[in-house]
Amino acid sequence: MANSRMPAHTRDPAVLRTALLGFGTVGQSVARILTEQPPPGVRLTHIFNRRIDEKRVGWVSPDVRWTADIEDVFADEVDIVVEVVGGVADAGQWVRRALSSGRSVVTANKQLIAHHGAELIALAEQHGGELRFEGSVAGGIPILSALRDGLGADRISRVAGILNGTCNFILTSMESRGAAFADALADAQALGFAEADPTDDVEGFDARAKLAILCATALRAQVAPERIATRPLTLVDAVDFAHARQLGCTIRQVSQAAWDTGTPDVLHASVRPSLVSRQSPLARAGGSQNIVLLQGQYGGETAFSGSGAGGGPTSVAVVSDVAAIARQRQRVAVAAGPARCDDVGARPTATAAVLPARVTGEFVTPHYLRFIVKDRPGIIAAIAGAMERHGINIDAVLQLPADSKDALPFVVTVEACPPAVLAAAIADIGELDFHVRPPVDLPILSGGGQS
Amino acid sequence: MANSRMPAHTRDPAVLRTALLGFGTVGQSVARILTEQPPPGVRLTHIFNRRIDEKRVGWVSPDVRWTADIEDVFADEVDIVVEVVGGVADAGQWVRRALSSGRSVVTANKQLIAHHGAELIALAEQHGGELRFEGSVAGGIPILSALRDGLGADRISRVAGILNGTCNFILTSMESRGAAFADALADAQALGFAEADPTDDVEGFDARAKLAILCATALRAQVAPERIATRPLTLVDAVDFAHARQLGCTIRQVSQAAWDTGTPDVLHASVRPSLVSRQSPLARAGGSQNIVLLQGQYGGETAFSGSGAGGGPTSVAVVSDVAAIARQRQRVAVAAGPARCDDVGARPTATAAVLPARVTGEFVTPHYLRFIVKDRPGIIAAIAGAMERHGINIDAVLQLPADSKDALPFVVTVEACPPAVLAAAIADIGELDFHVRPPVDLPILSGGGQS
Repeated sequence: MANSRMPAHTRDPAVLRTALLGFGTVGQSVARILTEQPPPGVRLTHIFNRRIDEKRVGWVSPDVRWTADIEDVFADEVDIVVEVVGGVADAGQWVRRALSSGRSVVTANKQLIAHHGAELIALAEQHGGELRFEGSVAGGIPILSALRDGLGADRISRVAGILNGTCNFILTSMESRGAAFADALADAQALGFAEADPTDDVEGFDARAKLAILCATALRAQVAPERIATRPLTLVDAVDFAHARQLGCTIRQVSQAAWDTGTPDVLHASVRPSLVSRQSPLARAGGSQNIVLLQGQYGGETAFSGSGAGGGPTSVAVVSDVAAIARQRQRVAVAAGPARCDDVGARPTATAAVLPARVTGEFVTPHYLRFIVKDRPGIIAAIAGAMERHGINIDAVLQLPADSKDALPFVVTVEACPPAVLAAAIADIGELDFHVRPPVDLPILSGGGQS
Repeated sequence: MANSRMPAHTRDPAVLRTALLGFGTVGQSVARILTEQPPPGVRLTHIFNRRIDEKRVGWVSPDVRWTADIEDVFADEVDIVVEVVGGVADAGQWVRRALSSGRSVVTANKQLIAHHGAELIALAEQHGGELRFEGSVAGGIPILSALRDGLGADRISRVAGILNGTCNFILTSMESRGAAFADALADAQALGFAEADPTDDVEGFDARAKLAILCATALRAQVAPERIATRPLTLVDAVDFAHARQLGCTIRQVSQAAWDTGTPDVLHASVRPSLVSRQSPLARAGGSQNIVLLQGQYGGETAFSGSGAGGGPTSVAVVSDVAAIARQRQRVAVAAGPARCDDVGARPTATAAVLPARVTGEFVTPHYLRFIVKDRPGIIAAIAGAMERHGINIDAVLQLPADSKDALPFVVTVEACPPAVLAAAIADIGELDFHVRPPVDLPILSGGGQS
C-alpha cells in the first residue's frame, strides 16, 4: 500500500473512504448505519480500536480493515476520519493530523470542540478539509445544522436548554418518585443512564462544554467552557420538588446563554439547577431527553427536542455529517471536473431517491364518535348492536349534563379498527331515525400521532 | 445593461445578485433582513412587484432596482431569484425560467413545491442552479435543513405535525374559551390569523400541501397533495372539547404520514381534526404555533416547534436558504478557481465571525431560597431583615407540613435581583445560628429560560 494518499490507482475516486476511530457504543452504531444504509458515495474502510480483538464483529463488510494501530489509518487512503474515541489528548492529536493532511473529520467529541473548536475549524479551512460535529451537542437533535442552515439568517439572542440527559433523568426520577438525590443517582447508574463516576454530569461540566459549542454556533460568541458558571445538581433535595410543586414549577438543570442587552461583548452564561414553570417547554423534557430553545430576532422562539445521547441518536448525527461532506465533495467535483456535466443523468448524486407511493388515509386508531340525538330509549342499544355486527369493540360511552333532550350530545369511543370498517358501521348507524345532526368521527391519537 | 448574464464586466463576481419577486408581508421581511444584515456575499439588487408604486419603501438601498416588469429581472444580471409571490401559474413560470437559465431559486411557495417540486428540482440540477424551499413548510421551523443535514442518515418512518397555524389558532381558541367554530373563526379573521376566505386552511388544503412536501423530504415518498385524505375543521363543535377533556385529550388538526409496515409502496397520509392526548407534544402547540414530530429508525423521536407563519419566521427561512446558496457557491468557486488558495486568509468566507466574549453567570431572575433550620421564634424576621438591608423584595414564604422542628425546611421566594446582591444577603443570613444545612438558592425561570 502506497504511503501517500494521492494519486490513487486502484480506488474509485467518487467513493469517500471513511475510517472509524473508536468502537464503543457510538462507534458500533455508526458502523451499523454505514453498513446497513451507507450514504451515497461513502464507504467504511477502516475501524480503529485499541482492543480490536475484543471488538471485532461479523456484520461489517469483510473489506473493512480492522486495526489497533492508528498509523495504519494514516498510511492508507482515507478521505474522512470519524472520531468517536472521546477524550482530548489522543483524539485531539488524531483529529489535527487528519485535518492537516487535508482529510475531513466528523467528531462527536464535545470537550475537544468546546476547547479547541476554533483552532480545528481554522485548520480544516487551511487544508481544504471539512470539520463537522453535530453529534457533540444534544445527540439526536440536529441543532447545529438547524443553526447553520434553516436559521442561519436570523440573529439569535438567547439559547436555553436541557443538555445533559443524565441530570434530567435523575431530576425527573426525583420528581416522579419523591426519591432522594443519592437514590435517583444509584437508579440511573443501575439503568445505564449515569456512569460509575458521575462527576462530569452532576457538576455540570458536560453541559457547559455543550453550552460553549452552542455559544459559538448560535450566539457567535467564543467562550472557554471553564468560564461558564456551574452549580452541582447535588444542591437539589427531594424537599425542593415538594416546594417547587407549590409554586407551579419543577426543577431542571438549565444551561442558558444570552448576549447582554446593554454591553456589546458581555455574555451571560450558566449551567445550574433551576426552578422552571410547569408550562415551560423546559419542564416537558422528561427522562434522558434533551431540549434546545432559541430566541431569534426575526423568527421568534423555536424549540428542538429529542434523545440527547445514546448510540442510535448520536450515530445518526455523525453519519449525517459524513453524508453532508459527501454531498459537498460531489458538488465540488462536478464544478471542478475537467468537463462540466450539463445533463442530469451524467451527474453523480448524493441524494436518496424519492419513490412514488400509493397513498391511503387508513390509519388504524381508536375513534371518538359524537352523536347529537333526539333522546328516546334504546339509542345506545341500537348503536352498540351496529358496532357488534361490524366487529367493533366499544371502549366507553360518555354523556355530559345537557340542557335539552331534543338535541342531546353523547360520545362513544371505540377501540382501534380499520377506518373502512368504522365507516360502514357509521353508515348503518346514520340511517337510524334519532339523529339531529350527522354523527362525527375523529381519530384518537396517543403520543406523537398514529396510535 | 447587457442582455446576457455572462460575461460580467462591471460586477463583483464574489457577490450574488439577488432579485426579490413579491413585496407582501413575507417579501418585505425578506428585504428587511437582506438590508439590515445581508448574508456574506449576497446583495439585494431587484424588487419586483406588480403594483410597485404603492409598495416602494425608503429603507432599502438606493441601488436596488424596483420594477413592475418581470422582464427587467430576467434581462439583468441576477444570480438568485427569491419567489414570494405565491400562486402556481405566474410564480411557477418565473421559477422555471430562472432555473432554466442556470439561476438559483429560493421560494416559500408550498403549492408550487407540493405540486411541481420533483420537476423543479430536476430542472435545477440540469442547469447547475439550486432550488431551496425551507419557507414552504412550517415557516420558522428549519425542518427541511434538519432532515437533509442533521437527520439525513436516519430512515424516517413517520411524520406527524400541526402544519396550519390558522386551524391551530381556531382550535386553541375554542378550547380555552369554549367558543363555537364560527366565533373562533371570526376572531381569527379579526386578528389577522385567518384570511377572508379561509377555505384553504379550514378544509386542510394548506396543510396537505405541506404534508406532501414532508412526505418527499422526510419519507422519500412522492405524493400528489390531492391524494392525501383531508377532513374539514368544521366537523369540530364546542361540545367536542368538553368530551375530549373528559377523555384526557384536546383536539388538533393533525397532519400525518407513515410508510405501511407491511406493503412497501403504500403510504398512509391524512389531514384531519383529531383527539390528541394532553400529554402529547401535539397538544402543547398553542395559538398559531406549528410542530413537527419525526420518528427515525435509529434516532427515535425528535420534535421541532416554532412559529408556523408570519413575515419574520418565514423570511428567516427564505434568507437562510439564500445564505446557504452563497456558502455553496463560494466553496465551488474556491475549488474550481484557476489557483487553489491554501491559506485561510485568502479564501472568501460566508460564515459570520465568532467573537470573543466576556462571560458572566449573572442572570437577573427571581430566586427560590430553601432553608433547613432548627425552629425557634424570629427566624423569618431575621431573614426578612437581612433581605431588606440588601434591598431585596420577598415574594412569598412557603412552608409545608414537617415531621420535625429540629430540621424544618421552608422556602422564601424573592423578586428578580442581581445575583451578586442576593449572594451578599445569603452570606449574611448564612451566619445566623439556626441553620441545620446551608441555605440553597435556585433561580426561578419562566418560559424558555432567563426570566
